[in-house]
Amino acid sequence: MSVSSLEITVGSLIPRLLLGPGPSPVSPRVLQATARPTLGHLDPQFLALLDDVNERLRGVFGTRNQLTFPISGTGSAGMEAALVNVLEPGDTAIIGVQGFFGERMTKMATRMGAKVVAVEVEWGKAVEVDRLIEAHKKHPAARLLGVVHAETSTGACRSLEDLGAYLRDHDTLFVVDAVTSLGGMPVEVDQIGIDICYSGTQKCIGALPGLAPITFSPRASKRAHTRKIPSTSWYLDVSLIENYIGAERRYHHTAPINLFYALHEALRELDEEGLQARYERHARVGTRVKEELYSRGFIPFTDPSCRLAQLTAVELPGRRDEAPLRAQLLELHGIEVGGGLGPVKGKIWRVGLMGHGAHDESIDRLLAGVDQLLGS
Amino acid sequence: MSVSSLEITVGSLIPRLLLGPGPSPVSPRVLQATARPTLGHLDPQFLALLDDVNERLRGVFGTRNQLTFPISGTGSAGMEAALVNVLEPGDTAIIGVQGFFGERMTKMATRMGAKVVAVEVEWGKAVEVDRLIEAHKKHPAARLLGVVHAETSTGACRSLEDLGAYLRDHDTLFVVDAVTSLGGMPVEVDQIGIDICYSGTQKCIGALPGLAPITFSPRASKRAHTRKIPSTSWYLDVSLIENYIGAERRYHHTAPINLFYALHEALRELDEEGLQARYERHARVGTRVKEELYSRGFIPFTDPSCRLAQLTAVELPGRRDEAPLRAQLLELHGIEVGGGLGPVKGKIWRVGLMGHGAHDESIDRLLAGVDQLLGS
Repeated sequence: MSVSSLEITVGSLIPRLLLGPGPSPVSPRVLQATARPTLGHLDPQFLALLDDVNERLRGVFGTRNQLTFPISGTGSAGMEAALVNVLEPGDTAIIGVQGFFGERMTKMATRMGAKVVAVEVEWGKAVEVDRLIEAHKKHPAARLLGVVHAETSTGACRSLEDLGAYLRDHDTLFVVDAVTSLGGMPVEVDQIGIDICYSGTQKCIGALPGLAPITFSPRASKRAHTRKIPSTSWYLDVSLIENYIGAERRYHHTAPINLFYALHEALRELDEEGLQARYERHARVGTRVKEELYSRGFIPFTDPSCRLAQLTAVELPGRRDEAPLRAQLLELHGIEVGGGLGPVKGKIWRVGLMGHGAHDESIDRLLAGVDQLLGS
Repeated sequence: MSVSSLEITVGSLIPRLLLGPGPSPVSPRVLQATARPTLGHLDPQFLALLDDVNERLRGVFGTRNQLTFPISGTGSAGMEAALVNVLEPGDTAIIGVQGFFGERMTKMATRMGAKVVAVEVEWGKAVEVDRLIEAHKKHPAARLLGVVHAETSTGACRSLEDLGAYLRDHDTLFVVDAVTSLGGMPVEVDQIGIDICYSGTQKCIGALPGLAPITFSPRASKRAHTRKIPSTSWYLDVSLIENYIGAERRYHHTAPINLFYALHEALRELDEEGLQARYERHARVGTRVKEELYSRGFIPFTDPSCRLAQLTAVELPGRRDEAPLRAQLLELHGIEVGGGLGPVKGKIWRVGLMGHGAHDESIDRLLAGVDQLLGS
């Protein structure tokens, strides 16, 4: 064993204040729940907890969809599950691309053999509804139209109501990435008419990374059952997983039990606070942190028409190189913020105030660190 | 919110002694590590921990393979990752089927468009090496030959040395499912000549469910890079993941941070005990539990030539219906054992003594419960 191996222990890790694009800070109560002894995935106690998690998720998603549960993987596994269950080779997928995660959707769909129609917009803006509808009119038989609700790479929000209203009269499935929105702002799946919506547990939900809540409307579920060839993924196939989460309780894979503990406790916290109160908390601190940063010379990256509350993207004062300051903020002040992805790498900070991190105290600590580093 | 929702809390879950096919009991030390505050997936502290986890996994796998890391999913995601990275439509996959998990391999490979050559044997036995070699001689251009080392559904062990020696002179990749073997018995990847080996963290490793350690030999890694079309799975694509686990540290997906804490602590425990000592512990308690159960009239299910130590499959005394007794053992004595899967559902118990559960105290508690229920 190398010397370095001997030096690293989990107990010696220095906690950080997580104000990046995720994971977000996890409450002591959720962490403690995680440490409860592991149960078997077929234990009646665990199955009752699983049912309760799924029912609480229906509340957060705003849906009565039976097929609502956490995928045993991270948010990106949720994205893959959303696509792989309904796409067959040759299907057309219209995808709104307003950043890194819209691009990721196009890459996944392409691998699945879909013909991808990407409707792109400059990073920092939201894809226009007219252009998405125009693309659909050119490809009315498209299997799905996918958008990212809250684009984590740019801080841009794409509204859902307009597309939901349009797609309600079409067979095309409406797929929504709510990884950075669920729990932090309204995602009304049934009211809007979303067919497949997925998220992660480590952002506004306030649980640990490793699960991806997902919901399928009845017609999306029907599509997964009536496709001609089985999905290339066995692990993510909802037509199999539903036999475990449903009454049959047929073993599919071993659920990551302790991550469900964390999610259950985080959803209880959310219920105690109330969804509306949580949305308002995210909105309020999101407004404040923008005002504070802009007043210090940080330059807004995201178009004013579509700025998210929970994730703020900014260029640094004087457009200075962001990486050294970000490293100092982490090392000297124990605060993590995110850098840019892809074309904006090195250019922006992404400041997330999500879940347990969406409080004034987080902003106060961030500003104290920033002010010291900028010498103001 | 329903009344039942209010009643279920993680804190009120009654712990069980997990003596089924997995998950296995988790030590208090590992559970405590899990509850440490979450770090970001690009935090230098976490990256150092990740490197250390991977180095320790190399030790357990018996390999110097650079591409050794935990997949962010359960053991079944490990199986899918092993296959999807190297199979392309039209490839031939020879798969030894000696139970439920060999069957699962064939199902996954079929979904990926492979021509599957299944070499089947009666449940409870190990697929004969001669028949696997014969199949390979008929299909010498097969992309891979896959076997399950420790078949969790039957308690049967398939030796690896014979196949490793044969395949060493062929281009066919040797794929091994070590979900129930890794950490409980030797899996010498480099010495045997295994190309892809995967496992789970919730059995003999003694960590939490939700990660799947995997290792790729240089030629398996090369195959993943030189395939003609990208793997249908973006989430499991090792040619992308390696840019995160390697020096480049390029974001792929958010690692399930706290599950890495648990795995790191479990691997430290394993190093402190020593691999050989752990193997011997599993072997010893596996022998004892068989003797004790057989002496009480339980009937061995697995062929004597290939019985695993860590997982014992038995029919009940008098071949009575197993489910009611198993439910009583759980409810009255807090002990979980597993039932049968597929064709042996309702017919067998699967008693696992793995990881932190592989101790004489587990056997004592199991026998006390069994004796009371059987009235002996």
